[in-house]
Amino acid sequence: MIRQRIYEIIDNDPKDRDKASSLFDWIMMVLIWLNVAVVIIGSVNEIHDKYRVFFTYFELFSIAIFTIDYLLRLWTAPCKFTASKYVFVPYIRYIFSFLGVIDLLAILPFYLPFFMSIDLRILRILRIFRLLRVLKLSRYNNSFRLIVNVLQRQKEKLYITIFFMIIMILLASSVMYFIENPVQPDKFPNIPATLWWAVATLTTIGYGDIYPITILGKMLGGVIAIMGIGLIAMPSGIISMGLINEYEREKKRRKKKTATKRQEKTN
Amino acid sequence: MIRQRIYEIIDNDPKDRDKASSLFDWIMMVLIWLNVAVVIIGSVNEIHDKYRVFFTYFELFSIAIFTIDYLLRLWTAPCKFTASKYVFVPYIRYIFSFLGVIDLLAILPFYLPFFMSIDLRILRILRIFRLLRVLKLSRYNNSFRLIVNVLQRQKEKLYITIFFMIIMILLASSVMYFIENPVQPDKFPNIPATLWWAVATLTTIGYGDIYPITILGKMLGGVIAIMGIGLIAMPSGIISMGLINEYEREKKRRKKKTATKRQEKTN
Amino acid sequence: MIRQRIYEIIDNDPKDRDKASSLFDWIMMVLIWLNVAVVIIGSVNEIHDKYRVFFTYFELFSIAIFTIDYLLRLWTAPCKFTASKYVFVPYIRYIFSFLGVIDLLAILPFYLPFFMSIDLRILRILRIFRLLRVLKLSRYNNSFRLIVNVLQRQKEKLYITIFFMIIMILLASSVMYFIENPVQPDKFPNIPATLWWAVATLTTIGYGDIYPITILGKMLGGVIAIMGIGLIAMPSGIISMGLINEYEREKKRRKKKTATKRQEKTN
Amino acid sequence: MIRQRIYEIIDNDPKDRDKASSLFDWIMMVLIWLNVAVVIIGSVNEIHDKYRVFFTYFELFSIAIFTIDYLLRLWTAPCKFTASKYVFVPYIRYIFSFLGVIDLLAILPFYLPFFMSIDLRILRILRIFRLLRVLKLSRYNNSFRLIVNVLQRQKEKLYITIFFMIIMILLASSVMYFIENPVQPDKFPNIPATLWWAVATLTTIGYGDIYPITILGKMLGGVIAIMGIGLIAMPSGIISMGLINEYEREKKRRKKKTATKRQEKTN
Repeated sequence: MIRQRIYEIIDNDPKDRDKASSLFDWIMMVLIWLNVAVVIIGSVNEIHDKYRVFFTYFELFSIAIFTIDYLLRLWTAPCKFTASKYVFVPYIRYIFSFLGVIDLLAILPFYLPFFMSIDLRILRILRIFRLLRVLKLSRYNNSFRLIVNVLQRQKEKLYITIFFMIIMILLASSVMYFIENPVQPDKFPNIPATLWWAVATLTTIGYGDIYPITILGKMLGGVIAIMGIGLIAMPSGIISMGLINEYEREKKRRKKKTATKRQEKTN
Repeated sequence: MIRQRIYEIIDNDPKDRDKASSLFDWIMMVLIWLNVAVVIIGSVNEIHDKYRVFFTYFELFSIAIFTIDYLLRLWTAPCKFTASKYVFVPYIRYIFSFLGVIDLLAILPFYLPFFMSIDLRILRILRIFRLLRVLKLSRYNNSFRLIVNVLQRQKEKLYITIFFMIIMILLASSVMYFIENPVQPDKFPNIPATLWWAVATLTTIGYGDIYPITILGKMLGGVIAIMGIGLIAMPSGIISMGLINEYEREKKRRKKKTATKRQEKTN
Repeated sequence: MIRQRIYEIIDNDPKDRDKASSLFDWIMMVLIWLNVAVVIIGSVNEIHDKYRVFFTYFELFSIAIFTIDYLLRLWTAPCKFTASKYVFVPYIRYIFSFLGVIDLLAILPFYLPFFMSIDLRILRILRIFRLLRVLKLSRYNNSFRLIVNVLQRQKEKLYITIFFMIIMILLASSVMYFIENPVQPDKFPNIPATLWWAVATLTTIGYGDIYPITILGKMLGGVIAIMGIGLIAMPSGIISMGLINEYEREKKRRKKKTATKRQEKTN
Repeated sequence: MIRQRIYEIIDNDPKDRDKASSLFDWIMMVLIWLNVAVVIIGSVNEIHDKYRVFFTYFELFSIAIFTIDYLLRLWTAPCKFTASKYVFVPYIRYIFSFLGVIDLLAILPFYLPFFMSIDLRILRILRIFRLLRVLKLSRYNNSFRLIVNVLQRQKEKLYITIFFMIIMILLASSVMYFIENPVQPDKFPNIPATLWWAVATLTTIGYGDIYPITILGKMLGGVIAIMGIGLIAMPSGIISMGLINEYEREKKRRKKKTATKRQEKTN
């Protein structure tokens, strides 16, 4: 059946990997990276004005390919998702899957003006969505899943780290606001402005646009900076642990497999 | 008994979690985050002047809720803490517990002026304490404890890291002071001022307000910067180890539990 | 046979390590570090002009030694690489090995002008290659391999981290470009220029030459900075896991060895 | 014997810890931190001039105590170090031990002018050595040894990381010098000056005093910054592994102990 065959080509399930499938993946990856390059280079006004025709045709070509890709993936959704009582369920599941949304967002801004009148400025912002095409690449990398798995499993611990960080940013910037505001009212005019200092300090970026100049402010800033080191250490520790756990789980799974295989042989 | 029921609602012990308890937690979390937002936004003078009435009423409302919350927690303290010979012990224990102090500090600055005359400027600083309300949130997160546990168990190692860091900051800033002071007397006027450079360098923040300009100073700065990388690596290594140990301890505990359960079954 | 003896001296295989071999290694290491120092110090114009004669003679001397070293390694290649049907295969294998290429690049820029006319400016750039001599040092360090092994085994995970980083850099700089361009057209003139901001922010360098000044830009910048902390944590977690795995593998290997030795004894 | 008793008091061997010993340790720690505070605060000219008498007396008092401490430690050296054929060996061993050298350097600058005429400027620099007194504190912390052990055991791996870093700094700054020198001859005048940029970038400090402005320079700078993230991750991974190994070694040791104890009991 042709739908099954097309599904095998466009989907990157490793178990039905053949030459046509690899070629398709390779072409899509090249096209996506070219799109990224074009979006970035096209933002340079001089280049965009000079090669306007090229940019227009390349965009039309890309939209065509990505639209066909989207429609094919929609059509072959029943091959991917398990059957259901209602025939439309697999289509809905693809449309609202993470990659389905990305696939749609990557082409939507082109079609929107045909359906409704959109302010040119908003349309210009919507065109950023073209860069989301790069997220499609996650489909073509198998070991991508390991990292995502680890991040997902350690999700709650990472949230707490972010929560700690937010609390520290809030307290640090409030105290720093009270200390530095009387001396530098232009740099620390209110707490929201001071938040920027706190983020730049706790992430150790330190742009150097605002920093405390009073002795008390520098002392507080120093303590916060040293505490920030601990905060930055936390996600690194969490990910270390997550990867080690994931690795041990993998080892156990493999052991079980070989054990069951041996049992089957002895039987 | 009504006191026990109220305790079950306001306390976040997972074993007597019901709808009323979850609703109460949810309302308190929303109120706390709203308070944080109001404190931050209220520090912008233009906004504060424009919506002065709203800010006043919101503060009165929050204080009312937090005061009731504090009194109820105080009243139900005997349900939380084990009984004692003296009837007042549970109340004292709540008042001086970490979260009890936070609960009190969050409302105290509002009531203080009623009891004694306070300088307006000091009162303004005391109002920062309103932000401590965010620490109440730690009550509503169960996996918060894991991270706190790890930090507490690895406390001594983290202290030594901080001790190392302080020694390095002291030595680095003293030597740098002697090298750079003759050339940049305004930026490196004395060792306390140089400490600020040392902290910003060892934490890799690097605001860029002061940095060495002599060749000797740059060489020393470079060596210190590279040694600083090792220093920053230490807390990350310690937390990694702490989390892995904690995880293994958890695994053992679970194994023991299942082992004892099995034994009970076989018996 | 003299070729075998010379091979034993110049190669750093630990199993035929004697005094001549150690002396040779030591002399080469000193010469390489001297070369690095001379290249760096020689780039200071005043020093180079003053000691021009010394720099010329030192370069001639170094080239002579490195050329002899290269020719000897080429001549003794058959001792290093296993024999093949074709007699020239070991020579080719040395020439195209990583260290063989480094050995050649370290001396090539000196000989090039004899074979063809080269623009002086290009020649000057080619002379950077002299610094590649420092890579020869990797030959003289045995535990160098452990780190390289770990990096190679975790290669794919590290690539994904870099891929994540590139995606974040692309999306962050595109959105930031649309936000900041209208306010700071000179600092954020196009997406390629904004990439520099994104790299400096996500790696937490923060030179401070460009940074957002609008409220929206600062909010986005803050979120990106905090997400960047997670990104920086990933390679550290991956290398932790890699080193621990490598260590466990080593332990198993040693256990096996002692086990087989014991068995031999009992037999 | 009085020498043994004094040794028990001044030495911090945990097995003969009594009240006198703890009191002595506590007094020394306070005195050392006071010295650190005095050196730092005394570097502020206004304060030093105002309280000149206090600073002089405090220094005399400290020198007196530290000299007595040094002489007592020297006298009780035979109690610390195992006996030898020659009676003077334990004294020599103390004098040249790490802490013995620190103890001497902390008091030497005071006595030097009595023995020979010293330039006042050199003497001023020698007085930095007073800050080395803070290193005496390492004597009073028991778990200090764990971290030092880990660092020592992973020494070679950390050296390789530093070697990698030095190679990257050298190559990065040489290439960057050739790219940026023609455009910013004042900021990138020669390779040694560019080294400062490379260190500030690879350690992610980013003071912002020099940074590339050409497109090629920014591209190279971006690649180096991203590679630098990996470099910074390495020490963190190494220390994680070191701490985990150390912990497992400790666990084994304890297991062995309890095993031998049990065997003794069963016997």
